[in-house]
Amino acid sequence: MQDEKNTLNVDSTRLWQSLMDLAKIGATDKGGNCRLALTELDGQGRDLVVGWMKQAGLKITVDQLGNIFGRREGRDNTLAPIMTGSHIDTQPTGGKFDGCYGVLAGLEVMRILNENAVLTEAPLELAIWTNEEGSRFVPVMMGSGVFANKFPLETALSACDAEGKSVRNELSAIGYNGTAPVGGRPIGAYFEAHIEQGPILEKEQTVIGVVTGSLGVRWYDVSVTGMEMHAGPTPMDIRKDALFVATHLMQQVIHIANARQPHGRGTVGVVNIHPGSRNVIPGKVSFTVDLRHQDVNVLDEMDKIWRTACLDVQERFGLPILLKDVQYFAPTPFEPRLIKMVRDSAVSNQLSHMDIVTGAGHDAVYIASVAPTAMIFVPCKDGVSHNEIEDAKPEHLAAGCQVLLGAMLASAGQVAGSGSTQ
Amino acid sequence: MQDEKNTLNVDSTRLWQSLMDLAKIGATDKGGNCRLALTELDGQGRDLVVGWMKQAGLKITVDQLGNIFGRREGRDNTLAPIMTGSHIDTQPTGGKFDGCYGVLAGLEVMRILNENAVLTEAPLELAIWTNEEGSRFVPVMMGSGVFANKFPLETALSACDAEGKSVRNELSAIGYNGTAPVGGRPIGAYFEAHIEQGPILEKEQTVIGVVTGSLGVRWYDVSVTGMEMHAGPTPMDIRKDALFVATHLMQQVIHIANARQPHGRGTVGVVNIHPGSRNVIPGKVSFTVDLRHQDVNVLDEMDKIWRTACLDVQERFGLPILLKDVQYFAPTPFEPRLIKMVRDSAVSNQLSHMDIVTGAGHDAVYIASVAPTAMIFVPCKDGVSHNEIEDAKPEHLAAGCQVLLGAMLASAGQVAGSGSTQ
Repeated sequence: MQDEKNTLNVDSTRLWQSLMDLAKIGATDKGGNCRLALTELDGQGRDLVVGWMKQAGLKITVDQLGNIFGRREGRDNTLAPIMTGSHIDTQPTGGKFDGCYGVLAGLEVMRILNENAVLTEAPLELAIWTNEEGSRFVPVMMGSGVFANKFPLETALSACDAEGKSVRNELSAIGYNGTAPVGGRPIGAYFEAHIEQGPILEKEQTVIGVVTGSLGVRWYDVSVTGMEMHAGPTPMDIRKDALFVATHLMQQVIHIANARQPHGRGTVGVVNIHPGSRNVIPGKVSFTVDLRHQDVNVLDEMDKIWRTACLDVQERFGLPILLKDVQYFAPTPFEPRLIKMVRDSAVSNQLSHMDIVTGAGHDAVYIASVAPTAMIFVPCKDGVSHNEIEDAKPEHLAAGCQVLLGAMLASAGQVAGSGSTQ
Repeated sequence: MQDEKNTLNVDSTRLWQSLMDLAKIGATDKGGNCRLALTELDGQGRDLVVGWMKQAGLKITVDQLGNIFGRREGRDNTLAPIMTGSHIDTQPTGGKFDGCYGVLAGLEVMRILNENAVLTEAPLELAIWTNEEGSRFVPVMMGSGVFANKFPLETALSACDAEGKSVRNELSAIGYNGTAPVGGRPIGAYFEAHIEQGPILEKEQTVIGVVTGSLGVRWYDVSVTGMEMHAGPTPMDIRKDALFVATHLMQQVIHIANARQPHGRGTVGVVNIHPGSRNVIPGKVSFTVDLRHQDVNVLDEMDKIWRTACLDVQERFGLPILLKDVQYFAPTPFEPRLIKMVRDSAVSNQLSHMDIVTGAGHDAVYIASVAPTAMIFVPCKDGVSHNEIEDAKPEHLAAGCQVLLGAMLASAGQVAGSGSTQ
């Protein structure tokens, strides 16, 4: 029986209610969520969502790292499934939307397709990736990372938290030590909906961010070694003030990024001063540097200029500067064909949209190396995330879910069922 | 009976041996000293030195704050005594010379005068001031501070250490809760010998620092409030990076001091970053500022320029800057008559010497407000102090002691006894 309106519309209220129900598990006093990966609370959250997935008729598979896949069969089940998903673990003082939104938007897609008896050509899958946040166990983006061959399964399983508890044992404790191999699972396309975690959409009063890729990231640790001496008796001209020298490097980080707008980013987030006494000249200063850009060539150039800046400052002030490479994530452009599906879905749903890049890491960034991938962003209040006050509007969350539905149907192919996404 | 040489020479070996004997109490593995104020070890140190003072015939008085005075009578005991002294408490990882040298140099003066049966016109006194370091109890320079009416006795007695133990009870526990009132004791002149705790004398290859006064000090706490946001998704142009703004202030502190050489000092010793995460833009940065100069007008000017700099940076970057005054010590010029005695003593002993100001705080700086005061500096290795590797040469320590002897005799007047200081 055909729906007269001939449209599929996601249920905004149901999506919101699911988000709020999940958020009750590990709710914090300030309205946020603390559901650290593989804790008992994470187990309860997984049980709740897996229950919903089963109610939606999805066939559940759990792999050896606790990644969960819920499958909705298509007409031709030899085709690689069209997958969506995200994570439901949170930061210690996290919000209700980071990750959870991507999973529950995917669930809402399944539910609305069921209600309208839509049959897709390719099967669909909903994924919940283990330990995206990395707050309790490192590496971060653990489940998708092993899935995409970024590091070995054993590295993940033997990772321990601050109390010495291992991922292996904690997976068993909550009953998510599955048997399926991690990775190798075919994926025809991967879409992930997510709150932006930045302020751009809100500032531009735009509902849908068509994510074209992720910024590349270079992390460094820097230390400047001077000489700690008494602030009173030591004349300025013979001081070896590690902090004064370090401030010139810190400013360079910002200048390098400012000169490469709109996509350059530069941040010094951590600074340690030794010995850290009011009347002692700092003898050693160490700090972190985070440089980002979406263009691999520009990021390489930023890296080169930064290294030169370190040498220049070292020569100018005569204090030894130690520069250590900590991590490199290459810029990841998403799949143009999928990006277009997202953009077309926004257009056909008459939603304001703009191209955007993600500056934050996401499971999608890893999955992009093993499957065609795209992401959909919706605004979050004041751009704030990883914070208990993280917030998003129900209508924006529904809009992103609607775009996800359209993109997934475009990708999977709709062969039967009532309605379309416009 | 006249000494044929007609000179009084301090005993370098005995002075060194006394320093080494005292340093055995609370000795650290790295060759330093940990004899925190009013601990059992401080009590043992006091007992040892008081024993020596008694052997030298000094009459001991202990006041209600544990300050110790050892008196050697003169010919006219109605005259105010010529006093020398310092402290024997140490930093937690302190050295063997800071403070102890001033006390034991004073003791050596008494010993050599006794050996040569020297009678002075005015009486002489050797003082040991309680809790100069302030490592265990604040305020620092506690004994001399109350003596000089800088803060009330009750403030000192009720001060507690990190474990809640009070000065009052700890004084009793080591038996140094004396009955003499704190302060009001007449002082005709006060000389204090001390290691420089800075690198100037060593650099200038000069043995005696004729200390003309102390730098004034202004301490501030500063905080810059920005907005903590994710380092990836947040474009540079909308950031409120508290650290980037703070670096401009930190550099101003150095520039203000550099522009006022040789006596200007500027130091940022403590920096705290919130939240302090590699991929989060700093939302709040607080830091300490220490500005010094020997000229009260110049220090006032530095203060004015610094305040203006804070306003300028606030206006330029649009982030609120909070500036809090923490402490002010006015520059303290020492007594020209006593400074000349120190210089003359260096000259008559044919010791290289130079005028110098003290950048560090000393008991002498407080005493200068209630009595004519001067100080004598000797070099310490690499200018290092408040450190277990603090070191000084026996011949330099003896030279400073010899200058002290000459200055005290010049001040007290020598009426009988064998020899002179040249």
